[in-house]
Amino acid sequence: MAKKILVGIDLGGTSLLAVATSRKGKILGRHKRKTYAEEGASAVLKRIEHTVRDAVHKAGYKLSNVRAIGIGAPGPLDPKAGVILHAPNLGPTWNDLPLAAHLSKSLGPPVYLGNDVNVGAIGEHALGAGRGFKNLVAIFVGTGIGGGLILNGRLYRGVRYTAGEVGHMVLKADGPVCGCGKHGCAEALASRTAIERDIRAEIEAGRESVVPSLMKASGRDMITSSVIEQALDRDDPVVSKVMAAAEYYAGLMVANIVNLLDPEVVVLGGGVVERLGERYLEPVRVTAERYYLNQKDRSKIHVVATQLGGNAGVLGAAMMANQRWKQSR
Amino acid sequence: MAKKILVGIDLGGTSLLAVATSRKGKILGRHKRKTYAEEGASAVLKRIEHTVRDAVHKAGYKLSNVRAIGIGAPGPLDPKAGVILHAPNLGPTWNDLPLAAHLSKSLGPPVYLGNDVNVGAIGEHALGAGRGFKNLVAIFVGTGIGGGLILNGRLYRGVRYTAGEVGHMVLKADGPVCGCGKHGCAEALASRTAIERDIRAEIEAGRESVVPSLMKASGRDMITSSVIEQALDRDDPVVSKVMAAAEYYAGLMVANIVNLLDPEVVVLGGGVVERLGERYLEPVRVTAERYYLNQKDRSKIHVVATQLGGNAGVLGAAMMANQRWKQSR
Repeated sequence: MAKKILVGIDLGGTSLLAVATSRKGKILGRHKRKTYAEEGASAVLKRIEHTVRDAVHKAGYKLSNVRAIGIGAPGPLDPKAGVILHAPNLGPTWNDLPLAAHLSKSLGPPVYLGNDVNVGAIGEHALGAGRGFKNLVAIFVGTGIGGGLILNGRLYRGVRYTAGEVGHMVLKADGPVCGCGKHGCAEALASRTAIERDIRAEIEAGRESVVPSLMKASGRDMITSSVIEQALDRDDPVVSKVMAAAEYYAGLMVANIVNLLDPEVVVLGGGVVERLGERYLEPVRVTAERYYLNQKDRSKIHVVATQLGGNAGVLGAAMMANQRWKQSR
Repeated sequence: MAKKILVGIDLGGTSLLAVATSRKGKILGRHKRKTYAEEGASAVLKRIEHTVRDAVHKAGYKLSNVRAIGIGAPGPLDPKAGVILHAPNLGPTWNDLPLAAHLSKSLGPPVYLGNDVNVGAIGEHALGAGRGFKNLVAIFVGTGIGGGLILNGRLYRGVRYTAGEVGHMVLKADGPVCGCGKHGCAEALASRTAIERDIRAEIEAGRESVVPSLMKASGRDMITSSVIEQALDRDDPVVSKVMAAAEYYAGLMVANIVNLLDPEVVVLGGGVVERLGERYLEPVRVTAERYYLNQKDRSKIHVVATQLGGNAGVLGAAMMANQRWKQSR
C-alpha cells in the first residue's frame, strides 16, 4: 500500500494556504495563493483545488496518496454536513455552500470542514503549545477575537457548533460598542480593531505619537502589528497606554475563562500576540492571575503564545481530517 | 441479594440534609438537622452519621442495604481524595479533613465527596431540568453565585477541580467590589448579597420603600426572598429597580456562558430564583438572548429554573455516588 498523507487547508478572506503533511503533522509540501474572494465561490473553489494539487505535488506525492483533506474556514458553518452557512469575509455566493462535498468530488479524498478557530485549537493541541494536555482554550486576537475549546482531549463544539465565542464575552457592561452591535465585548476592548480605534482617537485628540510617521513609512493606512512594535520600542506614550488597556482586558477575559473552565493551557495567537510575544503575554498573565478565584496551584494553568503561529490552521485542519477520517471508519 | 439503595448528603453551613434514595433517585427517606458548625468537625461528623442513619431507617432499610453514599460540601475540596481542603462556612477544624474516609469508616459503605454546586448540577442533569441533554450549566444564585458544568454528559471539573466559578466572571470591569476582593464580578452585581446591598443603599439614600416595614413584619434583619417578592407584589420602586439591574447582569452572565459553551440548558437555582420563578427568569432570558452572538437556532438553548429546588444537592449527591461507585468497579 502506498504511503498515505494528509492535506490541510486554511481558507481566509485574503489568502488561502494548503499543506501536505505526514500523519504525524510534518509539513511535506506547502502552497499559498490569494483568495480573490470577490471573484465568487466557483472561482475560489477552483483556486483551492489548484492550491491543494500544488502542495501535494511539492511534497512529491499524488492525490491518490491523500487519506483525507481538512479545511478550516470562517464560520458560521455546519462541520458535520461540511456546509458553509454564511461567510461575511467571502461574500454572498458562499451562503449554504456544500464546500466539503464540492472539494471531495473534484479532488477525490474525503474532505472535512471545520471552523477556522476550532481548527487552530486542534493544531495547537495536537502539535503545538497544548501537546499532552487534556483541556486547552485557544484564543486568536486579530481584527476580531475568536476561540476554540479542547475539553477532555477533544474539540468541544456545543449544540449549535458555536462554542468558543470568547470575543463576545461582555467584560465591561455598557462599555464601548462592538462590531456585533452590543457593548463591552472583549472584541471591543482588546482586538486589533479596538487597539487601532483607541490609538487613532488619541492622535485625533492631539496627543503626540510616532504612529503617524511609522504608518507613513510603512506605506499602509493601517496600524499593523509591526507599527505597534516599533512604537513600543520607542516608548510611544499613546501606544503604551492603549496596549496596556488592551492587555488588561485580555487578562480579564483569560481569568473569566480560567475561572469557568479551569483548563491546563490558554494559548494566545494572532498577529499582535505573535509579534509582541512576552511583551504582550506577561501583562496579560499578571492581570489574569490576579483575577483567578482559586490562587492555589495556579502554576498548573499555563498562559502561553501559540507555537505553530500561522501554521496552526493548516496543521490543525490536517489533524482534524485524520481524526474524523478515523472516526468515520 | 438484598435491595441496594443510595444515600445523598447535603452539608451546609447552617443545616445538613440526608436522603435515602432508590438507584433511580426516588426519595425513600429523609432527615434534616442543624449543622451547628461552631461545635467543630468531630461533633458535626457525628451529626452527619446520625442523620444518615435516620434517613436510611425512615426509608425502611439498613446501612447494609446502602451501596454508596455521596456528600456535597462547600469547597475548596479534593473530590478524588475525598478531602475538604478549606471550608470558610464550617470553620478551621475542617481544614484538610478526610471527610469521605471518616464517614466510610463509621458508616460502612463507600463515601464519595463532591463540591456542593457540582453535585447540584449532577442532580439537575440526572433527574431535573437537564434530563436527556448532553451539556448543562447549573447556576445557583444565593449569598454568592456558584456554578457546575456537565459537558458531553459528564461532570466537568477542570485541572484543579475548580471549574464552574461563574460567580467571579467579571462582567463590569472596575465595577462594584466583590467579596473576593476584585471588582465587577457577577457575584458583586447579581447575588442576593448584591441585591440586599443595593436595596439598603437606596433606602439609606432616602428613597421610599416598603422594605423596612416588610422586614419588621418578618422579624429578621435580612432582606429575604420572601421580602423581595412581597415588595415586587406592591410595585416597590426601589426593589423593582434593584431587581431589574440584578436580572440584567444575570442575563449578561448567562450570555457569556452560552457564547462560550453553547450548551443545551442553563439551569438557574437558589432562593431568589425559586421564589420569583418566571418573574425573575423572563428578564434574564431577554437580556441573555439579546447578547447571544449566534441568533440562529437560539430556541435550542433553554434557560430554565431548577426542577429539584432544595433537593438538587442531596439527589445529585446520591446520583454521583452511584456513578462513581460504578466507575470504581
